[in-house]
Amino acid sequence: MRRNGVSEPESKTIVILGAGFGGVAAAQELARLRPENEEWDIVLVDQNNFLLFTPMLTEVAGGVVDASGIVSAVRTLSSRVTFEQGRVTSIDAANGQVEIMIGESLPGVQRARKVIRAEHLVVALGSITNFRGIDGLVEHSLTIKTIEGALAIRTRTLALLERADEETDPDARRALLTFVVGGAGFSGVETMAVLNDLVRALRDKFPRIDARDIRTVLVDPGTRLLPEISEGLAQYAQKKLEQRGVEMRLQTAITGAGEGWVEVKAEHVQDKERIPTHLLVWAGGVTPEPVIEKSGLPLGHHHGVVVDGCCRVKDHPNMWAIGDCAEVPRPGGKGTYAPMAQNATREGKLVGGNVAAAIQGRPQRSFAYHPIGELAMVGRQTGVASIYGLHFSGTIAWMMWRGIYLAKLPQMRQRVRVVMDWTLDLVFGRDLATIPVPHSPRPQP
Amino acid sequence: MRRNGVSEPESKTIVILGAGFGGVAAAQELARLRPENEEWDIVLVDQNNFLLFTPMLTEVAGGVVDASGIVSAVRTLSSRVTFEQGRVTSIDAANGQVEIMIGESLPGVQRARKVIRAEHLVVALGSITNFRGIDGLVEHSLTIKTIEGALAIRTRTLALLERADEETDPDARRALLTFVVGGAGFSGVETMAVLNDLVRALRDKFPRIDARDIRTVLVDPGTRLLPEISEGLAQYAQKKLEQRGVEMRLQTAITGAGEGWVEVKAEHVQDKERIPTHLLVWAGGVTPEPVIEKSGLPLGHHHGVVVDGCCRVKDHPNMWAIGDCAEVPRPGGKGTYAPMAQNATREGKLVGGNVAAAIQGRPQRSFAYHPIGELAMVGRQTGVASIYGLHFSGTIAWMMWRGIYLAKLPQMRQRVRVVMDWTLDLVFGRDLATIPVPHSPRPQP
Repeated sequence: MRRNGVSEPESKTIVILGAGFGGVAAAQELARLRPENEEWDIVLVDQNNFLLFTPMLTEVAGGVVDASGIVSAVRTLSSRVTFEQGRVTSIDAANGQVEIMIGESLPGVQRARKVIRAEHLVVALGSITNFRGIDGLVEHSLTIKTIEGALAIRTRTLALLERADEETDPDARRALLTFVVGGAGFSGVETMAVLNDLVRALRDKFPRIDARDIRTVLVDPGTRLLPEISEGLAQYAQKKLEQRGVEMRLQTAITGAGEGWVEVKAEHVQDKERIPTHLLVWAGGVTPEPVIEKSGLPLGHHHGVVVDGCCRVKDHPNMWAIGDCAEVPRPGGKGTYAPMAQNATREGKLVGGNVAAAIQGRPQRSFAYHPIGELAMVGRQTGVASIYGLHFSGTIAWMMWRGIYLAKLPQMRQRVRVVMDWTLDLVFGRDLATIPVPHSPRPQP
Repeated sequence: MRRNGVSEPESKTIVILGAGFGGVAAAQELARLRPENEEWDIVLVDQNNFLLFTPMLTEVAGGVVDASGIVSAVRTLSSRVTFEQGRVTSIDAANGQVEIMIGESLPGVQRARKVIRAEHLVVALGSITNFRGIDGLVEHSLTIKTIEGALAIRTRTLALLERADEETDPDARRALLTFVVGGAGFSGVETMAVLNDLVRALRDKFPRIDARDIRTVLVDPGTRLLPEISEGLAQYAQKKLEQRGVEMRLQTAITGAGEGWVEVKAEHVQDKERIPTHLLVWAGGVTPEPVIEKSGLPLGHHHGVVVDGCCRVKDHPNMWAIGDCAEVPRPGGKGTYAPMAQNATREGKLVGGNVAAAIQGRPQRSFAYHPIGELAMVGRQTGVASIYGLHFSGTIAWMMWRGIYLAKLPQMRQRVRVVMDWTLDLVFGRDLATIPVPHSPRPQP
């Protein structure tokens, strides 16, 4: 096709799998770099039609922020990107093809299989929860990886309070009021913090619930919280959580879960212990999206796609991988970058530029990024932060948390919503209304 | 028990079944009238822990307002009312007892049965959708009676747009883009209006969807829309909807529904016609909550509880019924009051006063109310209204709709939310992000 007589461009299909931080950043960078006179077909694929702002999932679980505040419709992010809502069912690296399944969320409507051929393929499918093979964990725990998961935590917590308010048996009531989180990394600590705040803040609305019956337990096999940040900040976080009533079970592993209980084993104790509970949140780690396993792409130690410093897949010059499902080497051979939103976003932007450079015959750039810092909320109006090597704790860190994440929300609509939710929470307290979960048939995979 | 030496009060249990407009109004009136020195135990029972603001359900279905804006937590409405979250499973009028089932929304947690004895029982259980025995309608239609229903309409509509965007077969694509509403009363007309606005407003976000493939159909056996209001206003509403692309099928009945189709029959046509569609909303009427059928309470022509003008059940001096599940006689023997929010709210307030009067040996008051007016939204920024006998249409009626219903929202928190949602919708347009429905096991009844 000829446009303005400038050149004789050919259509290039660039397919980006996954509309998380990495995939969206890559798509936006490509849309920005696409020359007016070239036909680049930028296709973004995801099973959900929104970019999920994962750092605020815990705010949704705690009922502080509404779900609509942390999802941004992908179709409105860039008009130069074609969006396909579908689940990636297979990647064929040898032929540069992917297959997606469309319409799985529509019971009663025929689903469609679609094969897309890509000149350049960017794999940004992220990660799923790693249940580490622990007995019963898949069936008997909730996770904080998805918006459905966050909503389920809030809904179930409120339903348990309502149920406990009606329970006459003291043991059964205590079990209904026991909330356990497994994993003391960022998402585990923040989930415990909001959950603990939620149940303790709402307690006075339930006249028949005794505050002493509420039990919130954080379990982790390590010796400390938040291995990602300094020892001092981690101790501060632990102290704050304990002051607010959280029971710490460090050097303790979850060994199993069932209906109404979780089984734990402390490191230096012979016997296992069963904690009666009806709400277990598992935040014990992630693993790359498993669809890449049969793709023919080279996988590394962490089951992620092995790429070079430019995020290009080894021996596949037109394939790229970023974010939680990639193993991007650190400069100087010091391992690979951690599965974090900060890294995924930068890798996405870089890979967008590198794909454009590859198409236009320019040289690639290599990924090198030092995280600006880390932030964790450890309870109502208190947090810990480590920014540019400086440490903050308490209200100031909490304000930084809110300010920084608010600024990072991708759309103004969501920023307005979140500020409004924070204000309503401050003025009127936590909202108790529990919207029932519609009962839909589970789609067959 | 003796308090301040004033009197020798005895504890009275007043049980109100249903936390809709009627039940909540009754509970609040009783809480207000309860003398300081008397022990009235005011118990409010509902399977949901919120009061649903039904007039704005269509706003939720259309994605204009978030669900959290139209639900108000019952526990925060009055501190003098004890709330029990449970589903009423039986009413025993002879013994003044009700049985409720607690914890049905909690898979994996033992449910509890609870029997409550009431000195005074107020039945305010409302209504359910009346499917009128039409083949396949229960399984293949959505309704606009509950918050789950409203959310399901929005979610499915957006998912159908995403699916249609991927469909290559023209017939299949048209079926995916056909939206049918059965029933042209208030809720049917308003649902059609918001649904029509939603799909047509979002169309331009889906580059592969042709506007001419979108079909919105309103079906009703009557000869006109909105039998509740004047002929002139109804004609205005019909004209507006038609201008905005809605296909009117009046004098046409829905005779069946199945996977991917709805069957209709026009009055003077021999053959039935199948309309291919994947979204059918049934708004063809309501019927009283069926749990009252085995209660031993006298039921009337519309299957509602027969009461006198004071909302007291015939031959049961300590039983009362109000709202959609009651047949409250109009003064002068002119039938019974219609199942409407306006009537339920006034009946609730009246019955609260009458129960208090019965306890204190004062005379009862009789119900007489003439609705102030009627309002219907017939599309973006246009409506029809009939207030104190005056007729309004267009933008002014739409503004009245918003102003009046905003003022009627029971809590300030919800008012702020709704105004914010209206503003965001105005500034940023309709939000496209579709939060997936979590897959929970259906509770066994």
